[in-house]
Amino acid sequence: MRLQLSTWQEVEAYLGRSKGIIMPVGSTEQHGPNGLIGTDAICPETIADGVAAKGDILVGPTLSIGMAQHHMAFAGTITYRPSTFIAVLKDVIGSLERHGFERIYFLNGHGGNIATITTAFSEIYAERSMAGEKGVLRCRLANWFAGRRTKQLARELYGDSEGRHATPSEVSVSYYAHPESVKQAQMEPKVAPVGEIRDALDYRRQFPDGRIGSDPSLASVEDGRRLFEASVEDVAEDYAAFLAEG
Amino acid sequence: MRLQLSTWQEVEAYLGRSKGIIMPVGSTEQHGPNGLIGTDAICPETIADGVAAKGDILVGPTLSIGMAQHHMAFAGTITYRPSTFIAVLKDVIGSLERHGFERIYFLNGHGGNIATITTAFSEIYAERSMAGEKGVLRCRLANWFAGRRTKQLARELYGDSEGRHATPSEVSVSYYAHPESVKQAQMEPKVAPVGEIRDALDYRRQFPDGRIGSDPSLASVEDGRRLFEASVEDVAEDYAAFLAEG
Amino acid sequence: MRLQLSTWQEVEAYLGRSKGIIMPVGSTEQHGPNGLIGTDAICPETIADGVAAKGDILVGPTLSIGMAQHHMAFAGTITYRPSTFIAVLKDVIGSLERHGFERIYFLNGHGGNIATITTAFSEIYAERSMAGEKGVLRCRLANWFAGRRTKQLARELYGDSEGRHATPSEVSVSYYAHPESVKQAQMEPKVAPVGEIRDALDYRRQFPDGRIGSDPSLASVEDGRRLFEASVEDVAEDYAAFLAEG
Amino acid sequence: MRLQLSTWQEVEAYLGRSKGIIMPVGSTEQHGPNGLIGTDAICPETIADGVAAKGDILVGPTLSIGMAQHHMAFAGTITYRPSTFIAVLKDVIGSLERHGFERIYFLNGHGGNIATITTAFSEIYAERSMAGEKGVLRCRLANWFAGRRTKQLARELYGDSEGRHATPSEVSVSYYAHPESVKQAQMEPKVAPVGEIRDALDYRRQFPDGRIGSDPSLASVEDGRRLFEASVEDVAEDYAAFLAEG
Amino acid sequence: MRLQLSTWQEVEAYLGRSKGIIMPVGSTEQHGPNGLIGTDAICPETIADGVAAKGDILVGPTLSIGMAQHHMAFAGTITYRPSTFIAVLKDVIGSLERHGFERIYFLNGHGGNIATITTAFSEIYAERSMAGEKGVLRCRLANWFAGRRTKQLARELYGDSEGRHATPSEVSVSYYAHPESVKQAQMEPKVAPVGEIRDALDYRRQFPDGRIGSDPSLASVEDGRRLFEASVEDVAEDYAAFLAEG
Amino acid sequence: MRLQLSTWQEVEAYLGRSKGIIMPVGSTEQHGPNGLIGTDAICPETIADGVAAKGDILVGPTLSIGMAQHHMAFAGTITYRPSTFIAVLKDVIGSLERHGFERIYFLNGHGGNIATITTAFSEIYAERSMAGEKGVLRCRLANWFAGRRTKQLARELYGDSEGRHATPSEVSVSYYAHPESVKQAQMEPKVAPVGEIRDALDYRRQFPDGRIGSDPSLASVEDGRRLFEASVEDVAEDYAAFLAEG
Repeated sequence: MRLQLSTWQEVEAYLGRSKGIIMPVGSTEQHGPNGLIGTDAICPETIADGVAAKGDILVGPTLSIGMAQHHMAFAGTITYRPSTFIAVLKDVIGSLERHGFERIYFLNGHGGNIATITTAFSEIYAERSMAGEKGVLRCRLANWFAGRRTKQLARELYGDSEGRHATPSEVSVSYYAHPESVKQAQMEPKVAPVGEIRDALDYRRQFPDGRIGSDPSLASVEDGRRLFEASVEDVAEDYAAFLAEG
Repeated sequence: MRLQLSTWQEVEAYLGRSKGIIMPVGSTEQHGPNGLIGTDAICPETIADGVAAKGDILVGPTLSIGMAQHHMAFAGTITYRPSTFIAVLKDVIGSLERHGFERIYFLNGHGGNIATITTAFSEIYAERSMAGEKGVLRCRLANWFAGRRTKQLARELYGDSEGRHATPSEVSVSYYAHPESVKQAQMEPKVAPVGEIRDALDYRRQFPDGRIGSDPSLASVEDGRRLFEASVEDVAEDYAAFLAEG
Repeated sequence: MRLQLSTWQEVEAYLGRSKGIIMPVGSTEQHGPNGLIGTDAICPETIADGVAAKGDILVGPTLSIGMAQHHMAFAGTITYRPSTFIAVLKDVIGSLERHGFERIYFLNGHGGNIATITTAFSEIYAERSMAGEKGVLRCRLANWFAGRRTKQLARELYGDSEGRHATPSEVSVSYYAHPESVKQAQMEPKVAPVGEIRDALDYRRQFPDGRIGSDPSLASVEDGRRLFEASVEDVAEDYAAFLAEG
Repeated sequence: MRLQLSTWQEVEAYLGRSKGIIMPVGSTEQHGPNGLIGTDAICPETIADGVAAKGDILVGPTLSIGMAQHHMAFAGTITYRPSTFIAVLKDVIGSLERHGFERIYFLNGHGGNIATITTAFSEIYAERSMAGEKGVLRCRLANWFAGRRTKQLARELYGDSEGRHATPSEVSVSYYAHPESVKQAQMEPKVAPVGEIRDALDYRRQFPDGRIGSDPSLASVEDGRRLFEASVEDVAEDYAAFLAEG
Repeated sequence: MRLQLSTWQEVEAYLGRSKGIIMPVGSTEQHGPNGLIGTDAICPETIADGVAAKGDILVGPTLSIGMAQHHMAFAGTITYRPSTFIAVLKDVIGSLERHGFERIYFLNGHGGNIATITTAFSEIYAERSMAGEKGVLRCRLANWFAGRRTKQLARELYGDSEGRHATPSEVSVSYYAHPESVKQAQMEPKVAPVGEIRDALDYRRQFPDGRIGSDPSLASVEDGRRLFEASVEDVAEDYAAFLAEG
Repeated sequence: MRLQLSTWQEVEAYLGRSKGIIMPVGSTEQHGPNGLIGTDAICPETIADGVAAKGDILVGPTLSIGMAQHHMAFAGTITYRPSTFIAVLKDVIGSLERHGFERIYFLNGHGGNIATITTAFSEIYAERSMAGEKGVLRCRLANWFAGRRTKQLARELYGDSEGRHATPSEVSVSYYAHPESVKQAQMEPKVAPVGEIRDALDYRRQFPDGRIGSDPSLASVEDGRRLFEASVEDVAEDYAAFLAEG
């Protein structure tokens, strides 16, 4: 059940049955020579829909822009400053809480979002911690690529060529979601270099075609389907546990 | 051409041909008994894709959340505070400008966004006006429903039943985009009341089912198709004029 | 009754009789070759006093600085960034609400303020919409030049020479208020060009002497008196209706 | 020369002769049983006009709202939070600097503004100190009541009955500026108590009629004239010294 | 009793006996050729410990960074912008208030902090003044060097050579606290010049070695001991009076 | 070499030899029944001094308050909201960069700080990434307890009783630094429970005496000495590598 495709009365009725919602959150950033700029939003959105198909689960609108400052030297990247992203998350969570949602599950597609989303949760919790108020709200951040099944499958498929950015896993899932957008590109070296992330020009200097440690030429629609299925299982299990928490 | 479905090299190449981009911007808010919560995002996104299909035009990711504080007493609405929305627009525009985009065309689906988006443009322009710097950046806000052809068609189709919120026009376009999500609902009175917009509880008191002045039971997929085509023509014309400005 | 010329006990007594107040709001910005920099503040202040003279009506201090970023390439202009202006309005409205004012009527003299003031109202309303609290506060934005009688008279007096900035109407009203400050200036062309507003250097390039579409050489003290009287009638009527709203 | 009553060309010409401007800054706050709410704005505005009458000196628009949180338990008081006031001062000073003003002289009427205005100057200076940039801008804060002649005259006229808030001096100057607004009121005790300032309810508890340590029943239009003249001399001297600084 | 060296149960027990706490607050800034960069934090920290040794008094962690923008042209200075410092103080005070502290005594070592700390108190009080809430919180700002005994001793020891920044008094107290860090330096002229404080480069131009009006070559460990003792007495007396206030 | 105990000339000279600095960063928060509130600041400060003793290394002032919102239900905890902490880090880093520091090494003592500090780095880098500017600044976050030798020793000493908060390791190091402050306390159960961190009241409900998963009754001064030595070696190695990076 997609929030965007529901009426308010349908959402009101849903809230009588469940206090949980899955919010896909991604980024709009370069993903190397053959990866889509929307990869990090496409993956969690697709997987969230897969999870929702298995039960009475509501999926909110995808937050398709995230914290991608380090990719700004590559055309097409759009970033929030962390402070903007925190404000976005505060308002989204505050809106959902206002309607009675109590378990908000952010299904994330971008490693670079983790620190900022975690910080946003703390900013929200701090409000009530300072006031000495007891909140019922619980937020969880989960990464679609970090579940047990998904990680194991990625390891089997790509081993050390998985790397850290523009990975064959995420490119595969995005191809599975958009087979019409599969891209061909030459890449040199086959496996990209690794290093530490700082600002955008420094990133481009270290990682000239955008990849970190990966060989996304290995990506395929079929791998994407398998990774999608593994992640749907991982996420469905974790979301159910989140709702069941005492 | 969708930014989300392109690689960074494709965007870099596009920038050699054009400095313009269309950014759909909407809202996640109640649209009465038979309207989708995502209506305001779905309409401009669909029309932007229609415009892009006619030429070498890039469409960015849809900003699907907007300024909807007045709808917060209806389940499922998600709002940015105006200050958050301004921060979002500053970062989105700043990111695009960084890559060399000079004409950013926001195709908007929500009347309640207009003041805040206009204010965001002023906040951005103020920065350079205070610094005495000359900017090449031009932003335009256009509403998909406000072009000549589109307004005339809506008038023909619905006359005074068009109203101001949850209009049959926008519901029709969203049904055209998502025919699987057409909803049936009883509405009383047939045409909703009108009035001034203030805070959320006041809104709900005045407009109990969410509509303002409209009868969206008139909406249909076929009307949606016609309105879509009219708006695509209006927007394509206006966008071309925007790019051609001296 | 001017707030600034009252004691706190007089205001306390007034609040026993009325919950309404008129707040003149203007701008400090260039108004072409013969217009005063204070025009946008002088006009609503003068008209508010005219309205107050007709009844038991309190007029607050004039907010004489507004959103004028686009005029910053002309000496003497002072602008708030929109974010500052929003903070100003939040504190002014919050202070008045604290004392029990429930209907705050902003009588505005500057078209460029409209989006920001509207946004500020939304920012304030959003606070309670997010909290699910019911507010009694109502804010209205009215432009002294937009009432029925005033617009008709301006049309009669100046037709197409009224234009959009540094209009003969507003210059006339400011001359009526300050006849000692009537200015003489040569203007070329007689009627100024029109165009879209962006940042300050762009504005100066398009509108070299500051006017947009107007011929303020037509302004006179006598016209100012007539426009003042028309506007006082328009505003008094609208303010009474605002107080009477259920 | 009043900025508000000048054209932009007149200000441009003035800047060829002087880089200085006087900005009156006050507050909108209770001033005890017989003092006007606008006292703190009226006094510096009146005195600034007196100073300007003696030379080629530009006076900007009065900033009539200041930091008055402690007076909020008395009807009619309007306050900026300090953070808002700092934003206001940054934009005002930034606007003036943009046009080439280099010496900005804030003539203040409210003791409670001093810390915040001083802090605002530091916030502005910090910007360039962090950037390692050399600024030519100089801001000065001067209180109309703190010059040698003015303090001596106040001491002669009222001795210990001058007190700290709602002083006979300031009430007298406001009466001199607005003789039509002289108020009569009984006050008990004759001289008000003294104490430390904290929040609004605490203030009202300590100082029930708003005065601190003063007996403003001593105020008169004639005293106001003498204090005005003394302060004009003090301020003119200090402003000339400010402009002459190397 | 040092907060940092206590357990939470010890603090909880203390709160049963007292609602007061001393918070040393300083700066990290140049102090001329022979003064330590930490002088302004070291002095109040040392004196607070001295006061605490005399009774059941809790001392919080030293806020060792303050508002030092004007010293930024000297290596090693670290400054908060005033707005950051205000945020810091809001959170520190808010945290302490949350636990039940009602009298928070800031023992300050840096004149340049006074305006910002005072402004921070107003920002905090404004919150409850706007809300019409009664607070029990009381904050006091006291300077270790401003008590009766301390000022008199400094006058006896150094007369006019005390000056305003990098004074022999503060250097002496820091030497008493850290005799291993006594520095030797040549200074020319013996007594430094005086002037007004603006931005960092302007400061360095006026005061090339960092001192204002002082001769800190007079400083000694023994003087430091005497000043420490005088200040401990002054502060202990003032803190006791603060706690005893009705 | 301690910044606080140096003169500005000494720091200027140091900058001729090195562009690096170690900044200890901690928290002021409950550490269970026998842990000191200052533990997280004391540990990195002590270890930083140990590292500095081995070479020509500058140590800045300890940032002793951090992000501890989840501990606010325990007396004595002081927290920054994440947004405040980000502002603090921006100003501290900006100040150091202004003087020519290029490698800023934050030696952290609190796991709860990691997300916010990482986010602060991104906020700073974003500034230059948006501007398209190349920065030379590099920030690193290192945790004193996370080096190879230190982790191994902690495992040897405490195994599973190390836990996640109020660990015997950190308590030991704080005891080594302050043997006069060793505390005795009964704890039930011996090893504390584990769980997820949310807001303060939720934390206290889950972890009633403040510990998470640890048995700090195992802590001792002697263990502290060994852990200190291990960590000094780990940190010295990592800091040297940081300075040596190309």
